[in-house]
Amino acid sequence: MNRTMTRAALALSLCLATAAHAGPPTEGSGVAWDITEGLTTEIGQRLAGTEREAAARDWAVARLKALGFQNIRIEPFTFDGWVRGAESATLTAPYPHKLAVAALGYSAPTPAGGITAPLVYFPTLDALKAAPEGALKGKIAFIDHAMRAAQDGSGYGPFGAARRQGPSIAAAKGALGVVIRSIGTDWQRNPHTGATSWAKAATPIPAGAVSNPDADLIVRIAKRGKPMTLALQLEGKPVPQMPSGNVVAELPGRDPSLPPILVACHLDSWDLGTGAFDDAAGCGIVTEAALAAQKGTKPLRTIRVLWAGAEEVGVFGGAAYAVAHKDTPHALAMEADFGADKVWRVQFNFAPGNADLGDRIAASLAPLGIVRASGKASGGADVGAIIAAQKLAVIDLDQDGTRYFDLHHTPDDTLDKIDPAQLAQAVEAWRRVLAIVANEAGPLAGG
Amino acid sequence: MNRTMTRAALALSLCLATAAHAGPPTEGSGVAWDITEGLTTEIGQRLAGTEREAAARDWAVARLKALGFQNIRIEPFTFDGWVRGAESATLTAPYPHKLAVAALGYSAPTPAGGITAPLVYFPTLDALKAAPEGALKGKIAFIDHAMRAAQDGSGYGPFGAARRQGPSIAAAKGALGVVIRSIGTDWQRNPHTGATSWAKAATPIPAGAVSNPDADLIVRIAKRGKPMTLALQLEGKPVPQMPSGNVVAELPGRDPSLPPILVACHLDSWDLGTGAFDDAAGCGIVTEAALAAQKGTKPLRTIRVLWAGAEEVGVFGGAAYAVAHKDTPHALAMEADFGADKVWRVQFNFAPGNADLGDRIAASLAPLGIVRASGKASGGADVGAIIAAQKLAVIDLDQDGTRYFDLHHTPDDTLDKIDPAQLAQAVEAWRRVLAIVANEAGPLAGG
Repeated sequence: MNRTMTRAALALSLCLATAAHAGPPTEGSGVAWDITEGLTTEIGQRLAGTEREAAARDWAVARLKALGFQNIRIEPFTFDGWVRGAESATLTAPYPHKLAVAALGYSAPTPAGGITAPLVYFPTLDALKAAPEGALKGKIAFIDHAMRAAQDGSGYGPFGAARRQGPSIAAAKGALGVVIRSIGTDWQRNPHTGATSWAKAATPIPAGAVSNPDADLIVRIAKRGKPMTLALQLEGKPVPQMPSGNVVAELPGRDPSLPPILVACHLDSWDLGTGAFDDAAGCGIVTEAALAAQKGTKPLRTIRVLWAGAEEVGVFGGAAYAVAHKDTPHALAMEADFGADKVWRVQFNFAPGNADLGDRIAASLAPLGIVRASGKASGGADVGAIIAAQKLAVIDLDQDGTRYFDLHHTPDDTLDKIDPAQLAQAVEAWRRVLAIVANEAGPLAGG
Repeated sequence: MNRTMTRAALALSLCLATAAHAGPPTEGSGVAWDITEGLTTEIGQRLAGTEREAAARDWAVARLKALGFQNIRIEPFTFDGWVRGAESATLTAPYPHKLAVAALGYSAPTPAGGITAPLVYFPTLDALKAAPEGALKGKIAFIDHAMRAAQDGSGYGPFGAARRQGPSIAAAKGALGVVIRSIGTDWQRNPHTGATSWAKAATPIPAGAVSNPDADLIVRIAKRGKPMTLALQLEGKPVPQMPSGNVVAELPGRDPSLPPILVACHLDSWDLGTGAFDDAAGCGIVTEAALAAQKGTKPLRTIRVLWAGAEEVGVFGGAAYAVAHKDTPHALAMEADFGADKVWRVQFNFAPGNADLGDRIAASLAPLGIVRASGKASGGADVGAIIAAQKLAVIDLDQDGTRYFDLHHTPDDTLDKIDPAQLAQAVEAWRRVLAIVANEAGPLAGG
């Protein structure tokens, strides 16, 4: 009987995981929902450095003010950015197929009208690495991989290398251009964009990603052993010294002499979708949780929220924050930048003296179904620099990533994908953690 | 215990329904899979009247020959068609958003560069009908609806009216253009195309569909009560007298004097995807089932397969078939044009004298989990004309439509969506039916 019940529960929980993905959207409520709904509706895509990111900063300042935050400011910085242009990819031989493609951030532009060249299939990044020097002269490389969904998003590191390093490697071997299978776990005809990182020695070439169904098509044609020709147009290009900025705001604590708790998200998004999962929801979660932690008695410590700019294109906002605030001590840093689904795991990075704090937090989270892991918390992209500079205490509230890479950096990152029930659970997990750490009088530090 | 088991089974079956949608693709095998894989890989989109539909006919002839069919022929015809052009839709006020849009078949073209006009929100087709004459002069109408998924696809009739009649109604009220919420049940950023039918009196206007997430966005903005402006470019246009054709082939029966069993699908597809669900899988199902029904003893009656041309744009192939074959008696007609998922229900349209045949067929299908319904079988689009002309016996093998309108007429109609296990069940259901009806010596007729 018990075993049967367990099977039923398991089957149902699996169901809910996918059902939340498939079903019609549900209307949510609360500050986290309102911020996510507002940013995706009134701003939409907010690519770093563009007028839309600037509009998002103004929107953020007005919203944080309305919510009662104090010391609200925009901390401007500039960075070398990238903007999308006209793009298309058409297989012209052996069979004509229009492919769903998106340029990767920092792709070099094709000449107007694009390039047409033989397409060479590489099943893995290692296979590309193994190709002889000059083997790709006059050709376009296609890099395949086998990323699958994982609750902890663990596929992104290894498989993401095809996007981060693949283009530099193809360029080094003489390729005219490179196209990769999207770094994503869905099967929609929507490509996943994201920045590539050119090696110091590399001469940038046009670099794009096709959707998983289009990559599957290329695999089936490659299996037939017929030479492939690709017509590729990717007119996006780098733009030097674009303007961006971080939005910083505070909920002052009872003891201003104590270093603040820093909670972060990023305000910019990729340009294909409206950045609901990545990362409007993260800004919603940290902001509602910070406010909720004030309910009743005001906490001892100040809670500072950082809505970082220009994260997607190279974590420029996080770097600028660490420089601007290097002389202000911080107590602890956390970030929400992994979607809108429920928190399933907590990890810490505490100095030995703070060990009991971890025990108390884990105990307060257990009723929400959140497990404690012995791994070392790393924080998030935008708080990485200040954590490293000040050896801060860190808490990771890991959200369920099972469907995160279905939506990540795609046109499908839209409000309808948000599951209000899971979003509310994440907010409650954050509230419980902030209510504890913001009332911790003793020194806080990382291990 | 039993109740618990039932819950477990129900939960699991619900899971499988969505899992088949979400998960990574599975490789299939057999004639039905090979036809679906071949058409989607070696031909891809095959819009009626284009070179790709012609290439698909040649592909079909070669494949049917290789499979041992006889009397294979292409029966050409011409029709007034439509081809897609450059298309885009951008909300320019109150908030800038690029929308995912696709022109509807037979949309009038916008002038090069498109049109920009106020966008007027109508929650339903009835709300549009209620708008006063001339109310839309100089404006673009947006038609919303609330289609939801259903196993029997029953939402398509009522909600599809927004696509079929909406544009004519908007044009009659003076609209410059019309955009509808996609007639689809998914939440991907991919619009659903499909033909609109202009009323006799109507002057065609540019008509398109936006994806469900984009329609949700329009709803949220409309709720804010701010005037909306849409920049719409839809350069697709009608093309008179395009060439098409039906591919007809036979597996001769032992008694050539008996009228044949006609099994149909359509070869053309919409141009956004590769027509895997709609309708390569249908051609695969009827073709493999016809061959499988030959195993052992050759059937009494000839089984004729019809891979119809130009179905999506107005069932021109089905009409041409009925004219070309009006003087040849047929015994019974069936069609597979509802995707690749499992058959869950059977319905008949038999003369009283054939009642026992229905009982025998229902009994042979029951072990596959297929239920019998008392409704009247209607056949399918491509066999509708010949059924009406000759009052043919009809059998409907209804496939599960729960996810059919997630994929229907979208870029997402690709091979990876096919669930080989469900496709094989559909083939087996068809095989059992054909093995019975093709060996029926007595007269067959509709009710």
